[in-house]
Amino acid sequence: MSQGRIKTAVLVAGSWGTAIASVLADNGHEVWLWTRNESQAAEINASHRNSRFLSDAVLSPSIRSTVSMEEAAKDAAAVFIVAPSSAMREVAASIRPHLGKDTLVVHATKGFEIGSLKRMSEVIAEELPAYDPRRIVVLSGPSHAEEVIRRCPTTIVVAADELAAAESAQDLLINSDFRVYTNDDVVGVEVGGALKNIIALGAGLSDGLGFGDNAKAALLTRGLAEITRLGMAMGGDPMTFSGLAGIGDLVVTCTSRHSRNWRAGSMLAQGLSLEEVLSRLGMVVEGVRTTQAAYRLAMQYKITMPITAELHRVLFEGKDPKTAVEDLMERDRKHEN
Amino acid sequence: MSQGRIKTAVLVAGSWGTAIASVLADNGHEVWLWTRNESQAAEINASHRNSRFLSDAVLSPSIRSTVSMEEAAKDAAAVFIVAPSSAMREVAASIRPHLGKDTLVVHATKGFEIGSLKRMSEVIAEELPAYDPRRIVVLSGPSHAEEVIRRCPTTIVVAADELAAAESAQDLLINSDFRVYTNDDVVGVEVGGALKNIIALGAGLSDGLGFGDNAKAALLTRGLAEITRLGMAMGGDPMTFSGLAGIGDLVVTCTSRHSRNWRAGSMLAQGLSLEEVLSRLGMVVEGVRTTQAAYRLAMQYKITMPITAELHRVLFEGKDPKTAVEDLMERDRKHEN
Repeated sequence: MSQGRIKTAVLVAGSWGTAIASVLADNGHEVWLWTRNESQAAEINASHRNSRFLSDAVLSPSIRSTVSMEEAAKDAAAVFIVAPSSAMREVAASIRPHLGKDTLVVHATKGFEIGSLKRMSEVIAEELPAYDPRRIVVLSGPSHAEEVIRRCPTTIVVAADELAAAESAQDLLINSDFRVYTNDDVVGVEVGGALKNIIALGAGLSDGLGFGDNAKAALLTRGLAEITRLGMAMGGDPMTFSGLAGIGDLVVTCTSRHSRNWRAGSMLAQGLSLEEVLSRLGMVVEGVRTTQAAYRLAMQYKITMPITAELHRVLFEGKDPKTAVEDLMERDRKHEN
Repeated sequence: MSQGRIKTAVLVAGSWGTAIASVLADNGHEVWLWTRNESQAAEINASHRNSRFLSDAVLSPSIRSTVSMEEAAKDAAAVFIVAPSSAMREVAASIRPHLGKDTLVVHATKGFEIGSLKRMSEVIAEELPAYDPRRIVVLSGPSHAEEVIRRCPTTIVVAADELAAAESAQDLLINSDFRVYTNDDVVGVEVGGALKNIIALGAGLSDGLGFGDNAKAALLTRGLAEITRLGMAMGGDPMTFSGLAGIGDLVVTCTSRHSRNWRAGSMLAQGLSLEEVLSRLGMVVEGVRTTQAAYRLAMQYKITMPITAELHRVLFEGKDPKTAVEDLMERDRKHEN
């Protein structure tokens, strides 16, 4: 793909979508940020702010926002889908009429489809049947949107079955502050990105209960082990889980106050119900839905996932958070591996 | 080993040694905490405080401190060596006259011997030639002393060539807040524990420069990769580096303000010289010495260790910290693995 100015579309205008739009704008590309919300589009166009999702950031004036999918996606050389996992199928389908033959499709959504338990690239492939599924790129890695917009140094991974597609995404996004690495393990990158949100919920729970840094490090270590077990059973490469989309993303999500999954966990620890937490945060908390999906995937693939199982008990079966974290710590395992 | 009350000795009375002494005292054992410093011993015995290393903690009154190695080690069923790596050879040698045939020797020191580049268990084995080296136990894992003394939930690993020796250490230390797992990879546990201090220095540097959580997560991910490379070359099991003594310890050391290696890095970022940092902290900063050792080990084993090399340039070759972290971020690698 040429490094000249090209038309790109980013769907939707959440915090991470807006951050990706900012990287593309910084790199000189034409950027259309699609949203369903007219007042949000008007705010982005008039005052270069997305106050609901990124209250402090001033956006590049070259990012244009629109509620028209046709305006955003028609003749775009690349489309970035950054929808909540629950909206992925509908958003992907809505691109179909506008998608050019050579358009690059990249997604940066972390989760599974509830019900089908499909990965996001599988959902996209089903909704875009004319598009070569080997060219669907997944973007992941340790990357808080707030820091990307402030141009803090960040590293991410782009993976596709076809290396040339991942390299096209790399060419569009890379700059001196945003380092982009290619990888060919789509399954591993998608599973790592999705499952880390469960561990982040658990980390927020542990921190909210005042268990300390030693306990959180234990949780992360075991969390990585259960992510790797399920990811490998689903066909991922174990190396991916030791990389940016595995341990990298896990660390940043579990230790940073920016993470909404961590915040949801810490609010649960304070005794709020799941409904109260979700309504106070006012944003999608992917880890909640992913806990449901992973709980079922663990049964399907016959994988032991103790943290996922305890979180499931807290979120959906009314278990007391403190008892859950204590039960995790007390497990009667004697040998490490 | 019986679970009854036995005599144990802990050498020396730094923060981590004092924390291990506290666990042993909590478990009902007789604990002798050895130090060279008479006023420190007197303070521990009279007011149950170790104010230089743990200013906030009140210690168990059953911990007795002494400057006599004979009083501490004679007839002890287990000796825990928690000396700085630079003092390990001398401390181990000083135990020799008092060591019983069946005494268990455990160490919890993270570093290499400068000059010989030997691991701590190798140094102990040389100084205790009558002791079966397969029974030397290494203790490691994510465990800030401050949290262990407050009985925050903590998980650690004990490793020895002879599983029964590791299990004896496990029996002495385990309780409901301090979970102890056995492992048979002495090399991996020692190398993981030592090298994470280098990455913690780098994380402090990155944080001190304001690079953000995304950059720190990238540093941790690459840090784990270079720890694993050298550790495997030295004979360690790759699984160990994904466990408590690898990623677990790395995370807690890089993300917690308790870590003196992190603090040293953040002070270097503020423009202080290495000499100023070491004198202000007033404690051993193992990561500084370990950077020297790992830099030489990397050459010896022909392993690429970019973070270690950059830290070496900052600490010993006068390189500007900001340029060093930027150079690490800018590396021209395109594919992740």
